[in-house]
Amino acid sequence: MGCPDLLTSPGNRETGSETATHRQVKVRPGFVLRLVYPEGKMNSKEEKWSESCSSPVFVHNPHLEGMKDDILYHFGLGTGTHDLPAMFGDVKFVCVGGSPWRMKSFTEYIAAELSIEDPKSEYPNICAGTDRYAMYKVGPVLSVSHGMGIPSIAIMLHELIKLLHHACCTDVTIVRIGTSGGIGLEPGTVVVTKQSMDATFLPKFEQVILGRTVVRNTDLDPSLAEELLQCSKELNQFETVIGNTMCTLDFYEGQARLDGAFCSYTEKDKQDYLNKASEAGVCNIEMESSVFAAMCKLSGLRAAVVCVTLLDRLKGDQLSNSPEVLHSYQQRPQILVGNYIKKQLKKKSSS
Amino acid sequence: MGCPDLLTSPGNRETGSETATHRQVKVRPGFVLRLVYPEGKMNSKEEKWSESCSSPVFVHNPHLEGMKDDILYHFGLGTGTHDLPAMFGDVKFVCVGGSPWRMKSFTEYIAAELSIEDPKSEYPNICAGTDRYAMYKVGPVLSVSHGMGIPSIAIMLHELIKLLHHACCTDVTIVRIGTSGGIGLEPGTVVVTKQSMDATFLPKFEQVILGRTVVRNTDLDPSLAEELLQCSKELNQFETVIGNTMCTLDFYEGQARLDGAFCSYTEKDKQDYLNKASEAGVCNIEMESSVFAAMCKLSGLRAAVVCVTLLDRLKGDQLSNSPEVLHSYQQRPQILVGNYIKKQLKKKSSS
Repeated sequence: MGCPDLLTSPGNRETGSETATHRQVKVRPGFVLRLVYPEGKMNSKEEKWSESCSSPVFVHNPHLEGMKDDILYHFGLGTGTHDLPAMFGDVKFVCVGGSPWRMKSFTEYIAAELSIEDPKSEYPNICAGTDRYAMYKVGPVLSVSHGMGIPSIAIMLHELIKLLHHACCTDVTIVRIGTSGGIGLEPGTVVVTKQSMDATFLPKFEQVILGRTVVRNTDLDPSLAEELLQCSKELNQFETVIGNTMCTLDFYEGQARLDGAFCSYTEKDKQDYLNKASEAGVCNIEMESSVFAAMCKLSGLRAAVVCVTLLDRLKGDQLSNSPEVLHSYQQRPQILVGNYIKKQLKKKSSS
Repeated sequence: MGCPDLLTSPGNRETGSETATHRQVKVRPGFVLRLVYPEGKMNSKEEKWSESCSSPVFVHNPHLEGMKDDILYHFGLGTGTHDLPAMFGDVKFVCVGGSPWRMKSFTEYIAAELSIEDPKSEYPNICAGTDRYAMYKVGPVLSVSHGMGIPSIAIMLHELIKLLHHACCTDVTIVRIGTSGGIGLEPGTVVVTKQSMDATFLPKFEQVILGRTVVRNTDLDPSLAEELLQCSKELNQFETVIGNTMCTLDFYEGQARLDGAFCSYTEKDKQDYLNKASEAGVCNIEMESSVFAAMCKLSGLRAAVVCVTLLDRLKGDQLSNSPEVLHSYQQRPQILVGNYIKKQLKKKSSS
């Protein structure tokens, strides 16, 4: 199973094994991924790939090789039931977001922008057999919903990374387009994430494996962030900034909101906490960016997080703007990323 | 805002404050909730309620009192836009589950079971204005979806607890009906959770508040669990056991699966980990029970977790049973809880 010319690494031994060997692998020009293998299990396929110039999607799981089929349960897809290379082999851009409606609307928007489909046509949900996630595809752009929170997006990313790997996709860019609470920014401002930080303002993601905590890096691709910022400047429709994003496990107590069912702190405690976050460079708060950054980095996906701020958390907690205003804000990451994709495809076709 | 005869506690000071005072409050007969208030902020309403014999739904947030309206954003509901007591005041049972389809199907099932609605009628989604959660109501039974993972169910529970509080509901029983991976159980076995445990097999939930970790208790109502087990014995349709449930933040690496995009451990490591879990009394693994137990306990809701096991994790990781078999398993918690509700309502009407 898998693509003959691509690497399935025999395991990323972050937990630290006495029998591990390290290896620097070029993932794309100027970018090096440090892979750590259990000794004696180096995969010869890796040598082949590292010579090539296109970037595959990495899985780091030696067990996948031995599986007859791989069922991507939460997508309702599988290698035994679907021809994944035929369905997804041409994917170059993946956009993910919490809401299934928003991801469908993004597909309709991008189809019209790219003039590659009739914008009035109905796009079928590829994951119609399940209601866990929704998935749409138009040309080289895949759009997938991920629900709310780290665990929900992590399940989706495990299956998405395996899907892209099984489909032999190369040179994939992935962007999370989402909503967030801003800190000291005018509502409607778009934030492109530099680093995703935890609730103590550290740029890390803690993954629990077999009951032990493994710390993963949450850096995102700096050149992609700059390109997106540049794209927004050219668009000139709304304010966009690059900054750190705090990723929390909870929307209420975890984000210092005063309007949850439980609240044991004062308005001053809240302001002090958010001000400390701001001093650490945090521009906005959401609930998925850390695991997104960590998993995309591990799998060699060029990744960005683009979230609009729906409110300024220094001024309040409730999302009291009208649905129309909130809806127009939510379209901003779509417009920016849609424009970016259009520009990239134009550049590619003219080169 | 809120119900005049119910308690809005001025804050549950678990974080430990030097100016806090403690107070034992009867939540229902034989059950005591330890509330800790900031000094000098004791609410006189609490005295009134503690004399009464019905159990309200607690919020522990002094800030809610001062809010003109409360927008339950992820439900698309609010105190300023909806008459919550009229819509929800009669709710006595709340069933929650990950999938919106399953929660709609549960509503259709319970309506037929209780013969209180035409089972062929369409039940409108009360949260139709959003795609974050789905909510259905039939008679005294509310059915709400919660997505996947702790953060997703936590957002829903914050807003559900506030909704039940605003609607002045009393004597509410809440059950999570879900799916899980079993350990050493025949697939299709239903597990009623005794305690929800974390990935290190400890019965606790860690809530991060203002960057600090607060540990919360994850006990569930033992008498409710026993009543559900008894109900299953009477039904005699499938095996049901009471046991501990491990709640993880991830479906793949977090549950020792060998089939994720990343896997750095061996089959033996996996088996060792699951066997240790089994020795700690863990019968099944899912992703929501710990925060569900913790939040329901804090709010005085009588709570149970009833999950069917879709596979035996000691024998595999992939959900490879046919959709028909998996679907029939998923109906078991619905059948059990539906039967329990029917029995309770019959008991009440005959008393």
